Amino acid sequence: MSDTSPETERALAYLRAHAEEHLAGLDTFLRMESISADPLKNDEMVRTAQWIADAFTAIGFEHARLTETRSHPVVTADWLHAGPDKPTALVYCHYDVQPVDPLEEWVRPPFEPRYENDILYARGCGDDKGQLYMHLRAAEAWLKGVGHLPLNLRVVFEGDEEHISEPVAEFIEAHPDLLTADVCIVSDSDMQDDHGTPAITYGLRGIAYWEVKVRGPFQDVHSGSYGGGVDNPANVLIRMLASLVDEDGRVTLPGFYDRVRDLTDDERAAYAAEPFAMDEFLAATGVSEPMEGERGWTLAERLSGRPTFDINGIWGGYQGEGSKTIIPGFAAAKLSTRLVPDQDPREIERLMMEHLQAIAPPTVTVTVRSLSNGWPAMTPLDHPAVGAAARASEKAFGKAPIFHRSGGSIPYVPALEQVTGIKSVMVGWASPNGNFHAPNEWMPLANYRGGMDAIVHLWDEMGRMTAAEMRGEG
Amino acid sequence: MSDTSPETERALAYLRAHAEEHLAGLDTFLRMESISADPLKNDEMVRTAQWIADAFTAIGFEHARLTETRSHPVVTADWLHAGPDKPTALVYCHYDVQPVDPLEEWVRPPFEPRYENDILYARGCGDDKGQLYMHLRAAEAWLKGVGHLPLNLRVVFEGDEEHISEPVAEFIEAHPDLLTADVCIVSDSDMQDDHGTPAITYGLRGIAYWEVKVRGPFQDVHSGSYGGGVDNPANVLIRMLASLVDEDGRVTLPGFYDRVRDLTDDERAAYAAEPFAMDEFLAATGVSEPMEGERGWTLAERLSGRPTFDINGIWGGYQGEGSKTIIPGFAAAKLSTRLVPDQDPREIERLMMEHLQAIAPPTVTVTVRSLSNGWPAMTPLDHPAVGAAARASEKAFGKAPIFHRSGGSIPYVPALEQVTGIKSVMVGWASPNGNFHAPNEWMPLANYRGGMDAIVHLWDEMGRMTAAEMRGEG
Repeated sequence: MSDTSPETERALAYLRAHAEEHLAGLDTFLRMESISADPLKNDEMVRTAQWIADAFTAIGFEHARLTETRSHPVVTADWLHAGPDKPTALVYCHYDVQPVDPLEEWVRPPFEPRYENDILYARGCGDDKGQLYMHLRAAEAWLKGVGHLPLNLRVVFEGDEEHISEPVAEFIEAHPDLLTADVCIVSDSDMQDDHGTPAITYGLRGIAYWEVKVRGPFQDVHSGSYGGGVDNPANVLIRMLASLVDEDGRVTLPGFYDRVRDLTDDERAAYAAEPFAMDEFLAATGVSEPMEGERGWTLAERLSGRPTFDINGIWGGYQGEGSKTIIPGFAAAKLSTRLVPDQDPREIERLMMEHLQAIAPPTVTVTVRSLSNGWPAMTPLDHPAVGAAARASEKAFGKAPIFHRSGGSIPYVPALEQVTGIKSVMVGWASPNGNFHAPNEWMPLANYRGGMDAIVHLWDEMGRMTAAEMRGEG
Repeated sequence: MSDTSPETERALAYLRAHAEEHLAGLDTFLRMESISADPLKNDEMVRTAQWIADAFTAIGFEHARLTETRSHPVVTADWLHAGPDKPTALVYCHYDVQPVDPLEEWVRPPFEPRYENDILYARGCGDDKGQLYMHLRAAEAWLKGVGHLPLNLRVVFEGDEEHISEPVAEFIEAHPDLLTADVCIVSDSDMQDDHGTPAITYGLRGIAYWEVKVRGPFQDVHSGSYGGGVDNPANVLIRMLASLVDEDGRVTLPGFYDRVRDLTDDERAAYAAEPFAMDEFLAATGVSEPMEGERGWTLAERLSGRPTFDINGIWGGYQGEGSKTIIPGFAAAKLSTRLVPDQDPREIERLMMEHLQAIAPPTVTVTVRSLSNGWPAMTPLDHPAVGAAARASEKAFGKAPIFHRSGGSIPYVPALEQVTGIKSVMVGWASPNGNFHAPNEWMPLANYRGGMDAIVHLWDEMGRMTAAEMRGEG
């Protein structure tokens, strides 16, 4: 491991000296109700974006601006005074948060941050406003504590990550000039556990998501008069959906696995070497045991290295109290598959739509709509920024990071690479069990403090390389 | 066929002479919004019951009374002056109707009867207030047109048929004295087609109905973070439900068919002899073709002579616009099976509850509640009242009736027989495609007129027998 430079020590000392003030700023930031999916929060989204732009301007960044999209604004800013030989890093986070319903399940109000036993509770504390804020204060530590950053830095923060992927994709297409960089640092991921083991995420799953509707009789009909004669759309739907997963837990969609890049022996060894935090997994979900899942793969492998099939919602017929003796006029479901490299979400989307029509009986009408899709993504483990992030993480947390894949998706990452060629390194500090999309989101404050230290170290580590080295041309 | 007696001719003439006045009375009766499932209509239910009691008193019946139940009152009345050697018939109908939602799908308001092209449109016109009213006016035709009835007559009209079976069952247990009779005539069924072919229903299906809930994670969890590791309650539910019907369309519940009385060769020949009104079936349901269903049985047989499995409702997870990437915390469904003689609904209820627990994976918690059940029922085709009903139907409609089973259930029928031993003969005049439980309920006025004639003939035919003959002791 490289030594810590005196400048880095000064930046870290700055963070210590301003810890209380910074925590107060985090409190202000987390109180902003930046729920991207809620149209009633549109003004609050703009207010949040402007707050970020002003904060980066205040610490010495330039060109802070809000760029309109079809939805919420994208915030960009830069500090490009390290010189042309120094690498340029682009930092990505998102300032929007998940909806908070069911509100009654929150022990503490979601937008009133609480600090208890060194844990922070608030919507967005881990996903992803807390991490955005850590980048703000780490940059401040360099600029105010040292006087400059050791590399050129751009930031790009979107406001639609939690609900739609089109705005950021269109922004990348329209404004590549605001994103010019040698590598992108994406902080929207988690640590390995809740015991201070850092993690670098080198793979993301993609997704394909559909709504399927099965229509039978033109309205609900009497199950006594027509039962046995009229095909029941709910019976048909569940039979079709059940046929999509076989007894070995594998998706039966023809062609589904054709492009799946199997885990390498090295990757499987890495998965196997890492103890799985079963207690935390069970506590975070409330299940008594994990599912059997796709045979031949471990739980850890299935959670991030293998594709899935999930029903995200289902409805049809009578849902009230008591009994109603009907054959429903229709039944519908939301379905999605998580995809892994090198599955093509548009191909899977098409295959599923064709397959559902192919297996539909002639007694019903089936319509399938694609609701969203996103590509899987991989960062090469030999990328120079991966090494820098690993060294920075170990310096901050005293432990070497785990290299892992994430089960989730960040649509920005594959979109950026496809348009600009810029690769992303994902290093983040949320808790892997932090209720990101659920009530009672939380993050250990040790992750917050360590994460800021890690960012300070990361800029030092990356600043020791030239721009050409960072691009892999060194 | 026996001749029509002069007295019967006088009763029929009375109906002709009072047709307009009777239609006006039907209009008044159908305007009463007697929806048993709607607590806001409780007073209207009592008003409807009292109207019936007063109407029977007005034509000469005695002891008209409303008996309270746990829900809506039961109306009874009698005319027992034909002498002890004459048979006593009990007439059963119900004065409650199905709810009217979705109201926007009604072309005409449900409680404003319309007469167009000799068709009557109104909630309850066929099921079952129209048929109750036909009994009122046929009895009036005898009592006012002739001066007496040719047999002893009791009536029993319940107000809960469309939603719960307990009130009438408890009424039968508590008041067998109000039901003393040699046979029960049940008019809550339909004709064979919409072209004036009468029908006698000799079999009813029973029912067992459950709600099943599958619980997984304690709340919705992120499908990226946990997909592949947390068993999805919606995936589990649909897999369990899909497994309940095999590739031959048979219910896989162990023991389900053990007590099924197979159709006899004679019955199958009768089903086969009767042309199935496919155009009417398709028009009434809006499907393009019937389901394949249980292999080895014709459509007509499956609709009334074989048991079924239907999902009546299903729900869980995200049902809103767009996509939400969750594994739902739970998924649930309403299920029912229509049963045939000699299946025991309480046994089927227990078998299903045990089976669903047996096939549930250990990763989820499954709860099953029984919501209702009812016995199947059969009338022996050699019962003397069946012959009387057949002759009466042929006299009224000019065609011999079809003997058929009904796919629906009338809980009163098996309950009456189990408590009192009284058998029921089901003869009714609704359209088989009359939207009983759907918007735009309708009945041909030819059925209304012919049905009243048939009742007038039926009392004549039955009055030619002694009470002992009617009980099968002759």
